[in-house]
Amino acid sequence: MRFVDVIRKKRDGEALSEEEIEAFVSAYTAGEIPDYQASAFLMACFLRGLNDEETSALTDAMMHSGEVIEWKLPHTVDKHSTGGVGDGVSLAIAPIVAACGGKVAMMSGRGLGHTGGTLDKLESIPGYCAQISADRFQEIVKEVGASIIGQTERLAPADKKLYALRDATGTVESIPLITASILGKKLAEGVDALVLDVKAGSGAFMKTEAEAKQLAKTMCAIAGKAGRRVSAFVTDMDRPLGNAVGNSLEVIEAIECLKGKAPDDYTELVYAMSAEMLCLCGVADERDCRERVVRSVEDGSALQTFRRMVEMHGGDVSYIDDPSKFPRAKHERVVCAPRDGYIASIDTERYGLAALLLGAGRNRKEDAIDHAAGISVLKNTGDFVRLGEPIAILYSNDEGRLKEGEQTLLGAISYEERQTPRKPLILLKIV
Amino acid sequence: MRFVDVIRKKRDGEALSEEEIEAFVSAYTAGEIPDYQASAFLMACFLRGLNDEETSALTDAMMHSGEVIEWKLPHTVDKHSTGGVGDGVSLAIAPIVAACGGKVAMMSGRGLGHTGGTLDKLESIPGYCAQISADRFQEIVKEVGASIIGQTERLAPADKKLYALRDATGTVESIPLITASILGKKLAEGVDALVLDVKAGSGAFMKTEAEAKQLAKTMCAIAGKAGRRVSAFVTDMDRPLGNAVGNSLEVIEAIECLKGKAPDDYTELVYAMSAEMLCLCGVADERDCRERVVRSVEDGSALQTFRRMVEMHGGDVSYIDDPSKFPRAKHERVVCAPRDGYIASIDTERYGLAALLLGAGRNRKEDAIDHAAGISVLKNTGDFVRLGEPIAILYSNDEGRLKEGEQTLLGAISYEERQTPRKPLILLKIV
Repeated sequence: MRFVDVIRKKRDGEALSEEEIEAFVSAYTAGEIPDYQASAFLMACFLRGLNDEETSALTDAMMHSGEVIEWKLPHTVDKHSTGGVGDGVSLAIAPIVAACGGKVAMMSGRGLGHTGGTLDKLESIPGYCAQISADRFQEIVKEVGASIIGQTERLAPADKKLYALRDATGTVESIPLITASILGKKLAEGVDALVLDVKAGSGAFMKTEAEAKQLAKTMCAIAGKAGRRVSAFVTDMDRPLGNAVGNSLEVIEAIECLKGKAPDDYTELVYAMSAEMLCLCGVADERDCRERVVRSVEDGSALQTFRRMVEMHGGDVSYIDDPSKFPRAKHERVVCAPRDGYIASIDTERYGLAALLLGAGRNRKEDAIDHAAGISVLKNTGDFVRLGEPIAILYSNDEGRLKEGEQTLLGAISYEERQTPRKPLILLKIV
Repeated sequence: MRFVDVIRKKRDGEALSEEEIEAFVSAYTAGEIPDYQASAFLMACFLRGLNDEETSALTDAMMHSGEVIEWKLPHTVDKHSTGGVGDGVSLAIAPIVAACGGKVAMMSGRGLGHTGGTLDKLESIPGYCAQISADRFQEIVKEVGASIIGQTERLAPADKKLYALRDATGTVESIPLITASILGKKLAEGVDALVLDVKAGSGAFMKTEAEAKQLAKTMCAIAGKAGRRVSAFVTDMDRPLGNAVGNSLEVIEAIECLKGKAPDDYTELVYAMSAEMLCLCGVADERDCRERVVRSVEDGSALQTFRRMVEMHGGDVSYIDDPSKFPRAKHERVVCAPRDGYIASIDTERYGLAALLLGAGRNRKEDAIDHAAGISVLKNTGDFVRLGEPIAILYSNDEGRLKEGEQTLLGAISYEERQTPRKPLILLKIV
């Protein structure tokens, strides 16, 4: 097989065989296909598309490009979010599900562009170590019911290499390529059940509900073919989720949630996802799952599970017991409304970019994170504000960034005279 | 300008600005853009297309990626063929045009895949040196009226680098990219006038007349915008041109042509192209040009000009005076018709591939050429043959290749009971 002929085949819109796709992924991972051929191939896939059989084959090849974990446990489950702004719900969901009897084996990523990463958030807890051995990971999942670690090099190495190439060549926003990238990793984790949170809106990679729905359906179909129990929520990312954007700010919000004190939208998503995960991994039926979730927060068992998970990862649990210990950024700026009116919309990506600018994310892979940097969202879409009323607080250890952050936020908000009905947070559920 | 944003723009089908295209070509040539970004960009261009303004900008950027020759001579002219099988007409055209008063400054390439290259053909004349300085090139053109040299590294270096990348990434067969590649080089040669021979058919890169016509029209439009006098012929490549395929075989055929003894189709194309070139570079009007061409062959001045050109390039002219001196291949095989009938069609690419196999071309850039290898075409499309009648003779210095060569030829020909009218050789002329 000459690989240039495979490129030409896809370029001409023909469907590739399983063998061709498998050969591409394994040869590319082994360094036998140069980047310049792989990127031409990816662009051809991007523009010509892949059908479900091709997407399945690509997912399978990604999954088998490295190790595949085998759990000898019932009720293993994970969730995946396609990424958003203020989307720290995994930190609350994992311990809730664990406290209710699920086994949450979660591999998370770092922040990407304007979106945050669960790993960066967790690492704002001093001592938390996300890079542990596979054995230790299995041990913690078994004992505590939840462990959140970083992607290991041994799982789906093809994805890591291909993702970096896609990022540099404008071939990220393709539903089949995104599907294979996400599911290749998630299926290699070996869990029984998977719940997907596909974000739609200005703060998401999928800007429209239609695109997000298409991605959710594709992922459910492909994961289903691979024999996993899977469902997906399409959720609104036309506004920041919850009130916190930034690493330690989102850890604090998750702890609040585990105490039953998080904002309504945040709590709604945490409860819905947690119940779905429990249901899907076979712990109990739908109604019972929802009740267990609520109870685990009320009786403190979810918070205790979080504390225990952090402890097992070497994290300093005194920060969980007293979140006021998290260092506060040296500089703050209150952003005030420039007029009276209802907030009609928030360009949520800009909120993410503002947080990045303040130090909460990375411009380059090598950049260090400012864990205290971020945004407290005081007013969100649909809220009424008066001229001069605070709408957000910016935090940064770099005072020079505050001004630009403020401008970015102010430019992201549009106002209207009358309130238009708010979209529901959960737009769709796909099974 | 982030280059990944330029890729995304083209990927999404938007037109690029002149600045974006110029920046891409110059940064890529300077090694500032990695191959993997360039190849994704090329695939996006391939699949999304480039409009005339973009193609002009790309051509211009290619042309200005290196030196641009300035001629201080009137009537400078060149031709370009998109490549075919047995297409050695440049060897006859250049001296004819020179003998009639044109100044032919011709840069030629080497064989590519199943198609031959003028340079390889010329180098079958012992001593012929195609790599000479720009000064010497100008001197020969001025004195003899024609010089055929190899592409220098200093002319359109962007094209060389991009062509190699396109070849490896399945992005060759794109009309805008081909246009920019051909014209980028040809415009850098600085000649006043250019006649294009766009081949159409099984032995050409453009398999259909419609594609060839589109390429011819695009090239004429873009060269016209660049202020050059240009016209194009679309010619049939559904059969080998003339009777010879192979390097010294085609030199001998060109010498025959200069003596007025070449096959009709070959002579027809040589005379038509030569007259068009003379007309376009302003030597005389159309009718007069045709007469001059015929006269230059009849009075021997064209052959003398060829002899002189070869001499100035260090070639051994005794081979021109006595073409029987060209070494004959050690091994020959006569291919005979397997049945009675008219030759309905010849898959001409296979003839080219058979010649390549016999040693006339290169599988890899580094391969040496067997100058004596090739095919004498005894019967062509439309001819009647009897069972056992010779249809071709194969020549090679590698006896082991003859059998496979014969199979390739036999498999390339289809027969019919009745003769269908032959297509004209010159299908279209575009001005």
